[in-house]
Amino acid sequence: MSAFLLAFAAALLGAKLLGELAERIGQPAVLGELLAGVALGPYALGWVPLSAGILLLAEIGVVLLLFEVGLETDLMELIKVGGRAIAVAVIGMILPFTGGLLLTFAAGFPTLTAIFVGAALTATSIGITARVLSELKMLDTREGRIILGAAVVDDVLGLVVLAVVSQIAEGGAVGAFTVARSTLLAVGFCVVALVAGIPLGRRLIVIVGRANVRGVLVAASIGFALLMSVAARAAGSAEIVGAFACGLILARTNRQHDIDEALKPVVDVFAPIFFVSVGAQVDPRFLNPLDAANRGSLLLALGLTAVGFAGKFGAGFAAGRGVRRAFIGAGMVPRGEVGLVFASVGRASGALSPAVFAAVVVTVMATTFLAPPLLKVLRPKARAAAG
Amino acid sequence: MSAFLLAFAAALLGAKLLGELAERIGQPAVLGELLAGVALGPYALGWVPLSAGILLLAEIGVVLLLFEVGLETDLMELIKVGGRAIAVAVIGMILPFTGGLLLTFAAGFPTLTAIFVGAALTATSIGITARVLSELKMLDTREGRIILGAAVVDDVLGLVVLAVVSQIAEGGAVGAFTVARSTLLAVGFCVVALVAGIPLGRRLIVIVGRANVRGVLVAASIGFALLMSVAARAAGSAEIVGAFACGLILARTNRQHDIDEALKPVVDVFAPIFFVSVGAQVDPRFLNPLDAANRGSLLLALGLTAVGFAGKFGAGFAAGRGVRRAFIGAGMVPRGEVGLVFASVGRASGALSPAVFAAVVVTVMATTFLAPPLLKVLRPKARAAAG
Repeated sequence: MSAFLLAFAAALLGAKLLGELAERIGQPAVLGELLAGVALGPYALGWVPLSAGILLLAEIGVVLLLFEVGLETDLMELIKVGGRAIAVAVIGMILPFTGGLLLTFAAGFPTLTAIFVGAALTATSIGITARVLSELKMLDTREGRIILGAAVVDDVLGLVVLAVVSQIAEGGAVGAFTVARSTLLAVGFCVVALVAGIPLGRRLIVIVGRANVRGVLVAASIGFALLMSVAARAAGSAEIVGAFACGLILARTNRQHDIDEALKPVVDVFAPIFFVSVGAQVDPRFLNPLDAANRGSLLLALGLTAVGFAGKFGAGFAAGRGVRRAFIGAGMVPRGEVGLVFASVGRASGALSPAVFAAVVVTVMATTFLAPPLLKVLRPKARAAAG
Repeated sequence: MSAFLLAFAAALLGAKLLGELAERIGQPAVLGELLAGVALGPYALGWVPLSAGILLLAEIGVVLLLFEVGLETDLMELIKVGGRAIAVAVIGMILPFTGGLLLTFAAGFPTLTAIFVGAALTATSIGITARVLSELKMLDTREGRIILGAAVVDDVLGLVVLAVVSQIAEGGAVGAFTVARSTLLAVGFCVVALVAGIPLGRRLIVIVGRANVRGVLVAASIGFALLMSVAARAAGSAEIVGAFACGLILARTNRQHDIDEALKPVVDVFAPIFFVSVGAQVDPRFLNPLDAANRGSLLLALGLTAVGFAGKFGAGFAAGRGVRRAFIGAGMVPRGEVGLVFASVGRASGALSPAVFAAVVVTVMATTFLAPPLLKVLRPKARAAAG
């Protein structure tokens, strides 16, 4: 227990310290939190192990973060940019997948490896993107909503891709029916949750609002968000999609402001653990070009980063006219923990050799660390307030 | 991960629902949270298993609760009642220990068993007491401070008793030197923490207060509280004593109010998990008098509850004149999770047979569930505001 509390304290204090330093040199705080993770993680200082306890707190952190982001998002405005978001998401999956596949194939690796590498480049880390958008106060802009919508679509489709690729790796046949079913189920969850959830959420909040005991509103709201996360997962989507949907629902109640106010400090304490845990998964030794063993991986990583970056950045231009497309493209760039999940599944199945695995991990790191400063630079300053 | 999130959601929603119902029928909300734990725990519905994840959240919950209680306690006022608190704590350990020892011995059990039963009756659950005091708005009264001070002393001495009793159970000799050393170390921690911590805490809060990033104050404060918990544990005290001391320290900074405001929702979300986890450790089948196998345990439990109750309640009268002594006695009654720890160690070492173990668990339950309504009844209403 003491070891766990110590790791929790180290992650929290390290994240806030490096986050503040990042802010002081004009970078988003989340970049500092990721770096704190690298420094404190098992491959460096080792003060924050990737233990079950820390990963549970990280999961609570990202679920609550997406709940908060949903709570601050206007569903009607999100629906207005729905077409654009879907275009960005779909193009943003096709381009990096094709690029990654062809590059890996051209480098002389087998087809299965190439498919896995391509798939690993399709994911977008909604957590990192949402956090940077929130820091830049861009959540409530058209660009912000397109990025957020596209990242959610990406998360829904990404899990379908992961399921398909895993089946291929296991040598199983992939039925078009299975793919269609998982897609429909994941999309259907979001639709049903929102259509049924909005009237239901309003009634629940009225009931909860009558409570006398302190803290019932925030605790019950978080309880609902956790239940929706589990339901989303059961429907084949990601937990964070359910938490985001719950936020959208409760945003349409008359207690949105009160919930958001009470939720903020809880997110402030747990979301950093998520970013630290993402950083902690990075082994900085892979990055040392002086070690001859790394050079092949680093070369492949360089190519994959270029392809992965260009594919997502280019997808931003599918957003259509009247918006800052480069900003949207940059918002889709970070792969974060989702890319690491793909890489781990690939390594476990044997589809990715240690060298290729290392290259994918370096690519994930590079895109994740590049995006926050890039978003800050590309932020459409004059129009930020206008939305 | 889904199973964990579901258990978290069930614990949170169940605690708030039954807490609210308890409140509606004029009982402290914490009683409802404990009952929610019994209902949802592994011995009933099984929705909230006592898994490692839930126990981690429970530990975070009780650490943050005691941090909050410390933050709302005036150290100078606490020191003023220090003598009274120590008298209540020491008498409140001697009376139940002697009573439990004699009763168990008289019932025909061996000496070792009698020692363990007596020791299990010495603990006071500071978590439950502090929560009820907070609900009754009695933290900031003389009675509240005496109870809190005595409970802290109890927690410090209780661990020494546990160490001694465990050594006896293992057949080891108990040196007076060892006992004196652990006591001095635990007491020394509190003194050094407060003397060195207050000026240090002020400086740290000034530094933290300069941060630009959102949520640094609450996250850093919680980080400090976690570090102090770990330090307290390393010094042979309980984690919650460190968290309480950290609260006392930060209460003397100029940001006490801001920290407290941001901390409240975090406590509202995690403290219920602690009370649910305490309730979940109760196997209600032990309570069935229709089962002949239970009757011996229940009879012993009845005697132990009487002795345990009278001993702690009577200790309240050591508080001296000018305070509501019955209220103070009632505040010392709940054994809670601390009593269960003693019982588990006793069972594991073989000192407690299953029947005696069951009797101790029932005693712990009875004292824990009796105390909140009793405190509510005995609350000195007219003087509550005067302090």
